[in-house]
Amino acid sequence: MSASLSRPRTGVWLIGARGSVATTVVTGCAAVTAGLHPPTGMVTETPLFAGSALPALSDLVFGGHDTLDCPLPKRAEALTAGGVLPPGVASAVAAELAAADREIRHGGPTSGDTRGEAELVTDFADDIRDFTHRHRLERTVVINVASTEPASGGPGAPLPASTLYALAALRAGCPYVNFTPSEGMHHPAAARAAERTSLPHAGRDGKTGQTLLRAVLGPMFAQRALTVRAWSGTNLLGGGDGAALADPAAAAAKNAGKERVLADTLGTVPEGEVHIDDVPALGDWKTAWDHIAFDGFLGTRMILQTIWQGCDSALAAPLVLDLARLAARAHQAGLTGPLGDLGFYFKDPVGAGPASLAEQYTALTALGQRLRPPAGGERAPGERQ
Amino acid sequence: MSASLSRPRTGVWLIGARGSVATTVVTGCAAVTAGLHPPTGMVTETPLFAGSALPALSDLVFGGHDTLDCPLPKRAEALTAGGVLPPGVASAVAAELAAADREIRHGGPTSGDTRGEAELVTDFADDIRDFTHRHRLERTVVINVASTEPASGGPGAPLPASTLYALAALRAGCPYVNFTPSEGMHHPAAARAAERTSLPHAGRDGKTGQTLLRAVLGPMFAQRALTVRAWSGTNLLGGGDGAALADPAAAAAKNAGKERVLADTLGTVPEGEVHIDDVPALGDWKTAWDHIAFDGFLGTRMILQTIWQGCDSALAAPLVLDLARLAARAHQAGLTGPLGDLGFYFKDPVGAGPASLAEQYTALTALGQRLRPPAGGERAPGERQ
Amino acid sequence: MSASLSRPRTGVWLIGARGSVATTVVTGCAAVTAGLHPPTGMVTETPLFAGSALPALSDLVFGGHDTLDCPLPKRAEALTAGGVLPPGVASAVAAELAAADREIRHGGPTSGDTRGEAELVTDFADDIRDFTHRHRLERTVVINVASTEPASGGPGAPLPASTLYALAALRAGCPYVNFTPSEGMHHPAAARAAERTSLPHAGRDGKTGQTLLRAVLGPMFAQRALTVRAWSGTNLLGGGDGAALADPAAAAAKNAGKERVLADTLGTVPEGEVHIDDVPALGDWKTAWDHIAFDGFLGTRMILQTIWQGCDSALAAPLVLDLARLAARAHQAGLTGPLGDLGFYFKDPVGAGPASLAEQYTALTALGQRLRPPAGGERAPGERQ
Amino acid sequence: MSASLSRPRTGVWLIGARGSVATTVVTGCAAVTAGLHPPTGMVTETPLFAGSALPALSDLVFGGHDTLDCPLPKRAEALTAGGVLPPGVASAVAAELAAADREIRHGGPTSGDTRGEAELVTDFADDIRDFTHRHRLERTVVINVASTEPASGGPGAPLPASTLYALAALRAGCPYVNFTPSEGMHHPAAARAAERTSLPHAGRDGKTGQTLLRAVLGPMFAQRALTVRAWSGTNLLGGGDGAALADPAAAAAKNAGKERVLADTLGTVPEGEVHIDDVPALGDWKTAWDHIAFDGFLGTRMILQTIWQGCDSALAAPLVLDLARLAARAHQAGLTGPLGDLGFYFKDPVGAGPASLAEQYTALTALGQRLRPPAGGERAPGERQ
Repeated sequence: MSASLSRPRTGVWLIGARGSVATTVVTGCAAVTAGLHPPTGMVTETPLFAGSALPALSDLVFGGHDTLDCPLPKRAEALTAGGVLPPGVASAVAAELAAADREIRHGGPTSGDTRGEAELVTDFADDIRDFTHRHRLERTVVINVASTEPASGGPGAPLPASTLYALAALRAGCPYVNFTPSEGMHHPAAARAAERTSLPHAGRDGKTGQTLLRAVLGPMFAQRALTVRAWSGTNLLGGGDGAALADPAAAAAKNAGKERVLADTLGTVPEGEVHIDDVPALGDWKTAWDHIAFDGFLGTRMILQTIWQGCDSALAAPLVLDLARLAARAHQAGLTGPLGDLGFYFKDPVGAGPASLAEQYTALTALGQRLRPPAGGERAPGERQ
Repeated sequence: MSASLSRPRTGVWLIGARGSVATTVVTGCAAVTAGLHPPTGMVTETPLFAGSALPALSDLVFGGHDTLDCPLPKRAEALTAGGVLPPGVASAVAAELAAADREIRHGGPTSGDTRGEAELVTDFADDIRDFTHRHRLERTVVINVASTEPASGGPGAPLPASTLYALAALRAGCPYVNFTPSEGMHHPAAARAAERTSLPHAGRDGKTGQTLLRAVLGPMFAQRALTVRAWSGTNLLGGGDGAALADPAAAAAKNAGKERVLADTLGTVPEGEVHIDDVPALGDWKTAWDHIAFDGFLGTRMILQTIWQGCDSALAAPLVLDLARLAARAHQAGLTGPLGDLGFYFKDPVGAGPASLAEQYTALTALGQRLRPPAGGERAPGERQ
Repeated sequence: MSASLSRPRTGVWLIGARGSVATTVVTGCAAVTAGLHPPTGMVTETPLFAGSALPALSDLVFGGHDTLDCPLPKRAEALTAGGVLPPGVASAVAAELAAADREIRHGGPTSGDTRGEAELVTDFADDIRDFTHRHRLERTVVINVASTEPASGGPGAPLPASTLYALAALRAGCPYVNFTPSEGMHHPAAARAAERTSLPHAGRDGKTGQTLLRAVLGPMFAQRALTVRAWSGTNLLGGGDGAALADPAAAAAKNAGKERVLADTLGTVPEGEVHIDDVPALGDWKTAWDHIAFDGFLGTRMILQTIWQGCDSALAAPLVLDLARLAARAHQAGLTGPLGDLGFYFKDPVGAGPASLAEQYTALTALGQRLRPPAGGERAPGERQ
Repeated sequence: MSASLSRPRTGVWLIGARGSVATTVVTGCAAVTAGLHPPTGMVTETPLFAGSALPALSDLVFGGHDTLDCPLPKRAEALTAGGVLPPGVASAVAAELAAADREIRHGGPTSGDTRGEAELVTDFADDIRDFTHRHRLERTVVINVASTEPASGGPGAPLPASTLYALAALRAGCPYVNFTPSEGMHHPAAARAAERTSLPHAGRDGKTGQTLLRAVLGPMFAQRALTVRAWSGTNLLGGGDGAALADPAAAAAKNAGKERVLADTLGTVPEGEVHIDDVPALGDWKTAWDHIAFDGFLGTRMILQTIWQGCDSALAAPLVLDLARLAARAHQAGLTGPLGDLGFYFKDPVGAGPASLAEQYTALTALGQRLRPPAGGERAPGERQ
């Protein structure tokens, strides 16, 4: 199909490409493109980005790294049984799942791997470049959606895998997005390299549930001058992330992001802890309970409680698609370095932007404007020359 | 004390002056002025209004109308027993309560009242003018904090009491605020009169709990492109308002405000009802449960529930003090007609402002700027000549 | 298959045989019999009834009346899409669904029906007898699982359909169970007829969620001598029952049952209302929120809240299977009249039994003992002669 | 007052006599005796114990050990400010508080204490005996209501203070009740001594909130044959107990009791953790959130959540009064050793009784019967000779 070949397409390279989030991303992109479902949860499909020349969903090509072998169609079947994907969708987009599955390369380091860090970075970058060239992609965005890593061991410790992938993205000249609390581009080694390349990057840790709520409720208390005394939370989740985050070391980065939201929006750090429990029985479903004790006028004690019951992959996937499109377009438009205007999507955003969701939305709106090609000027992606 | 006499002071005339809200307003203003409690819940005490030349809390003088006889100090005692006021405050400000109590005039119409509507308006206006003159007040703001009335009976029906008071405020040349869902200035008779006077007025129905939450959660769903399928709510409350709102006719106006917030922020009206139950055992405490069923990516069904447990009078009182100060300053600064920039405070605001709390806060911030006296120009209230 | 023919089998005649509950009953019985699922939720499969000689699940034969036409296999497909039935089960038991579907007869009265009440009862009874004879069933239990009817119109009003079916059950000599709040055997006309036949019958209104909780929490408060001040509840449900119960007249019987549980276990009727909202977006899922305000020592005010999120059909179906087996065995064992020992299953049980779930469980345990065939005596069902 | 002297009275010796629970016990006993409040929360005041010859509340005399110095009237004042005691009660019973305060002896070991364990036990026993003799008490019950201790250090470690007090109770010939999760009589050293004395004793860890609920909800799931997959819980509490239990070692014993209830009532241990967070802002108020994931028919996943908001001292105090009376009467009636029939009151009861609250209530009812004096036989306490 010559028409399709002549349109510039964009690669989306997923770290953790066989995980629940990645499977939902690939399935969902195909399902929305085919008109099987509306693009619920995708901000890039709202009027905010009309005219921003984002790559079309139908022009995204998926590949990635993973250390597991289970084929994507099988993963999609399991997610259907678990209620994450609606019945029938996985089989309707079987071809697209198989196509993406063929583009998944073995990641690392795995046990017994004799390659050093430099070699791994080179191999990963080669995989990404090869994918980009074979498909004649205009550019490829690298997005980390792998399970959360434990916090790294300090100076002298081996680089965490997420950072190796981040370095590979830089090496391959790709915009990079870290949707997880893992270190990735935040590691000093990667941060220094990023500065040299001036590629655009964003992160970290997608804001999908409890922290999303905190980013609107924190400002509410602050704007109403109500004193929050204690903000306590418990998260119950199964799936891979439940197991990973039940490890206190792995949860530390995530909780730091949650706490930062409160500190930034309230101006103080209230009492209270955050627990993350692994509850395998819940599968991919997440329940977050928050208990907020606040003082009203004359010190009267009041309480707000919230209970959020969501499906983590279904919350994450549309945001990942948004970020892939935005990072690609930002790269095309010449934006460089940390993309602070994407704080709307993250628990612990790069840059020094606001922590209130409303202000983050305003920043995102402005970014949408800034990405609009000038009249008669820069060619929008997918446009004929 | 000649200094105090020479400072211009502001009257606050409360309709429903012996109710829980009014009692908390008078007690709280005195307690904060005396340094017994911080001004929690008062937005006018935040940096937003630094330099906006609002009247000082210590320069407010209270009076009002009510049809009940129970003295304010006794009401304050009961509120202390009910946990609304902290122990010890009522006795610490007994003098201020007694002073306000002396300025409460008998309202109406009461059963057996032979006065016609015109006469009642005249009497009420005389009471307000007399209060203003005796205390040599620069101006008096009239604020309705009385129990919610049933919806009025349509064309030809007698004017509701809240509208008689609104007309009296206009007659006496006073800015007017309707903190309740009652008709007040919304009645066509009052609306026409208000247009002739161009006095500033604001309302209606203070946004103190469930609707406050809806005004931040609605925008969150909209901004994240998540489809809200159903938004259901139940309110349990005792006190006078519980009994009044258990009457479906009285609740209608309140629920209209709640629904408008959803319609305006979500862009659609989701399924779901709102119940208001009278539960005398809860006294002045209010519990609001909200259940929000929304669709995520690919139609995955998710749920958010919120439980708000607050003390209605303690939530309302600081907002009433805010509004008294803002309406007074707006009048002084020459603002006229509906004060649309005060939508932050109301369920069903006058004017055509936004329904999202964040945008309402932005409008309020701009108002704070606009109220700042020009350098060397307009004299701020309380300033020596 | 002569072996199978020689075993006595039991008919289960479902009023509302194409509804969600009936579809789940037929699907589930086949799935459990085939070993596809454990018998979760079926008390008759616990040791309580070991030796009570209940008919085996594999010996139940299904049929029934309905006024709708949608075939059972199609209904099961829809319930699978709605998450009520797990993926794959409906197709695994397609044969059993088709078999039951063939035994569904058109019910009534439907609009345009020219048959009088007596004729309808005769026709219904003929359908049941024909089913029993064609399948050479030892007996058939009639169970009402149809949508809730509005309350009947008082003396002189036409008999409600549920009562016509109850009369048909009596006419056909069948034990009868009313799993709904509809009148059924409670109508004076049916009650009188029931007394003459002394067939065993049970009901009414299956206790599947909020009332189940109330039947254990009410006794807890009573036993601990804690004073319940107010017990408020809101139920959100979609499906057919949501629409039926949003009608206050239909909800009245259901709420009476809920209230009776509190009155009986607490010894007083606390403040508080119960709402039932139709929320189509929830489909067959039901959310029940209860808010219980109680006094502790020295009048300290405390709160318990419960949130129950269940699938109505999945909660009801195992209880319906339990009741079919228990009513059949009770009939065989010669029990007559109202089966008061089945209060464990109902919101508003026949007879004068206890309202506390624990005491109802004790009564059920005793019934299990009583149903055990005497050694060497009465032949158990399914036993060779 | 010769009449009063001639009636046999009962001593209640509280370990932790200046704590919130003890203060509420003393205040509440006096307030109920004076008719200021009904005996809400006291099971011994229900018909269950009519005729069981329990000592009258007015015949209880209070004393105890504590290592703190704050006088009881001052503690009661603080509890009033914190909303635990209703306004006015502390001053109404000031005389009784002062009388109890005079009977509080300094406990130990405190830092710098040079006394060995044997000497401490002797001193404590002397204090108790002296109290009993001076007041001519018929007997004294020793009840531990002190803050929870960390778990003891294993063999060879010093005896925990709670065990020293338990040994002192045995030495002084007193029935003993452990209302806390501390070791007390469970320590092998005390357990051996208890066997020799055959004094009645009971414990441990009063069942006041989350575990009380679990003891009724666990049986409900079991009786309905619903499979509990995961039971997760978070407790937020301030006060002294919040700080003590935030220490994982101290929480271990408490959580073991909570888990035992589930294991015993469900027959399996479901997934899920229990958190206890210290949230000083909550003061003496405790919030417990439980999230129960269970399977219904055909594996359908359902959820029950409970939120319990109670005042810990107000929940504990009436149970402590119950236990004082029951232990005294058991001693008088000649019961010896572990009082297994008091499992109704404890998270981790002595003996091998049932874990379901309903069965525990049945056992308690039987105890009430057993404690009834035979007609014409044993003299009831307080009865004239």
